[in-house]
Amino acid sequence: MMKSRRRATSFDVAALAGVSQSAVSRAFSPQSSIAADTRARVLDAARKLDYVPNRIASSLTTRRTNIVAVIVGDMANPFYVQALHCIGRSLQAQGRQVLLFTLDRDASADDVMRRVLQYQVDGVVLTSARLSMRMTGRSLDRGVPIVLFNRYIPGHDAACVRCDNVHGGGLIASALLAAGGRRFAMITGDPGATTSQDRVRGFVTHLAQAGVAPEDIAEACGHSTYEGAAAAALALFDRPRRDWPDALFCINDIMALGAMDVLRARLGIAIPDALQVAGFDDIPQAAHLSYRLTTVAQPVDAMVAEALALLHLDGPARHIERAIDRALPGHLVVRATLRPPGG
Amino acid sequence: MMKSRRRATSFDVAALAGVSQSAVSRAFSPQSSIAADTRARVLDAARKLDYVPNRIASSLTTRRTNIVAVIVGDMANPFYVQALHCIGRSLQAQGRQVLLFTLDRDASADDVMRRVLQYQVDGVVLTSARLSMRMTGRSLDRGVPIVLFNRYIPGHDAACVRCDNVHGGGLIASALLAAGGRRFAMITGDPGATTSQDRVRGFVTHLAQAGVAPEDIAEACGHSTYEGAAAAALALFDRPRRDWPDALFCINDIMALGAMDVLRARLGIAIPDALQVAGFDDIPQAAHLSYRLTTVAQPVDAMVAEALALLHLDGPARHIERAIDRALPGHLVVRATLRPPGG
Repeated sequence: MMKSRRRATSFDVAALAGVSQSAVSRAFSPQSSIAADTRARVLDAARKLDYVPNRIASSLTTRRTNIVAVIVGDMANPFYVQALHCIGRSLQAQGRQVLLFTLDRDASADDVMRRVLQYQVDGVVLTSARLSMRMTGRSLDRGVPIVLFNRYIPGHDAACVRCDNVHGGGLIASALLAAGGRRFAMITGDPGATTSQDRVRGFVTHLAQAGVAPEDIAEACGHSTYEGAAAAALALFDRPRRDWPDALFCINDIMALGAMDVLRARLGIAIPDALQVAGFDDIPQAAHLSYRLTTVAQPVDAMVAEALALLHLDGPARHIERAIDRALPGHLVVRATLRPPGG
Repeated sequence: MMKSRRRATSFDVAALAGVSQSAVSRAFSPQSSIAADTRARVLDAARKLDYVPNRIASSLTTRRTNIVAVIVGDMANPFYVQALHCIGRSLQAQGRQVLLFTLDRDASADDVMRRVLQYQVDGVVLTSARLSMRMTGRSLDRGVPIVLFNRYIPGHDAACVRCDNVHGGGLIASALLAAGGRRFAMITGDPGATTSQDRVRGFVTHLAQAGVAPEDIAEACGHSTYEGAAAAALALFDRPRRDWPDALFCINDIMALGAMDVLRARLGIAIPDALQVAGFDDIPQAAHLSYRLTTVAQPVDAMVAEALALLHLDGPARHIERAIDRALPGHLVVRATLRPPGG
């Protein structure tokens, strides 16, 4: 079944390009320094000879596989798909690839990280809240750089890159206040996730400064899913109509979609006239005409660039960052789910 | 930076489990046959000793990396995200992982496939319409099994697994006719993709049998994106109101969302009263309350199982399938964008 035709080797490429064999190997290693014109000459010769280097074999000497593991906890949330896409594009542009790990509900941190380590990856990007602590510990024990994306672990010094969620929660509170919100409600996410906790904290703290007592803010957990948020929204409105909230913060966009859909379809609530809604993340669907959701945009490109930089993939040796916590500010994206200020 | 503590080796695991070293290696190879209780004893010993096998090193002798490349052309279409998630889950359950390749608009088939081949993957799943022919040729030239997912290449004998798109297009035509459709329109996808062509063919053929002439079906290309479909929908309705279509088939769901949103928001068209709409794929968003889209569900789980079986990952040697074209039937999912038959 396999063709047995002789394949070009790195010697052939070196001869055609007129360079040393080690220059050929450097030309294919993202972390190697080599003159741009030498690299171009090598790549050109490789193309002509249909030569493909074996990164797996060369990883045994370079100790680099040029593979980065990305662990995605929630493929149903478009924000993480967007992040995965951005990480994949950025790594590909560097000559590296993503080895994808998705987490099942019942996955054990040890099992997943044991699998990650089997592939001798150059680094790990962890986007899941669940299991973060144990996974991160195992990766660091093994000397494999890891960066937490869009979360951190309280009391742990693993490197993390995230949106400034406290600040973002404050932006939403401020916008809802300016638009005339009076009876506030929140749909929170995964209770154990720092992302949800911080957005809630920023929101509640900002409202408190404006005189809204925390105990006056209605709250329900939507578990960071569309369906969970729909159920949470109905629970929040299960009270006399005069007590219905008029300003709802869903701590992520996917939950805002679920809440908006069920409140309009089941209770006939007009948005933004009877209820103002805001989300967080700025997923592509937030811009769709059915929603036109006011939200906080996470600076995904900048976050991904920071996260990959912290893995030090280009350095001569592995280097593990400690005690780094990069919180990048998000910005408010005003669409149609809030009334115009003063309107 | 790296801990220098001595790591357990496969010898240590063999000693603790009371098995040979080769049994340890077989226990970690998905394609090896080994008694279930022996495997369990080895995995238990490995856990106790915190042993992690080096799949990269062992791939040089087994010629298996346990890595399957998945090439995704369109991460903005939730159907392909769903397929990627399903492929990832299935491979993980077998002890394998996905190496993810995303295609930029300007990617060259040769460059992408050259990168895939560098990682010595055990197989390739190609979900992109663009570049299929050249990519597939290169993979087969190198003896790497490849399977086309949800597409085929006319005149080429590469293995493919897809939904029966002609049949599915017919299901939609039949449902729209039964619901009283009279003035038909289509929003088509990527013009070069067999997926779009086949759905259109099934739709048009079925309508012709019911007496609707192909030239009476209005048509616009939505390029398989939400935004493209919104523009296409406006173009289809840029005619006197009495000539507006009353039955619209969007050849995939992501385009149906774009069309529904713009027609309701911009032209105030009531769905399904003034316009019936149907899609194809059954992406998660099709079930959302804003859309409740009638569509054809692709049998994703069965398609993924077939596709992975065709890669023969468990066989003793690589085996390349030729001239296999598995077309699995989809089924109609009736929601709220069609009027009840006879209603």
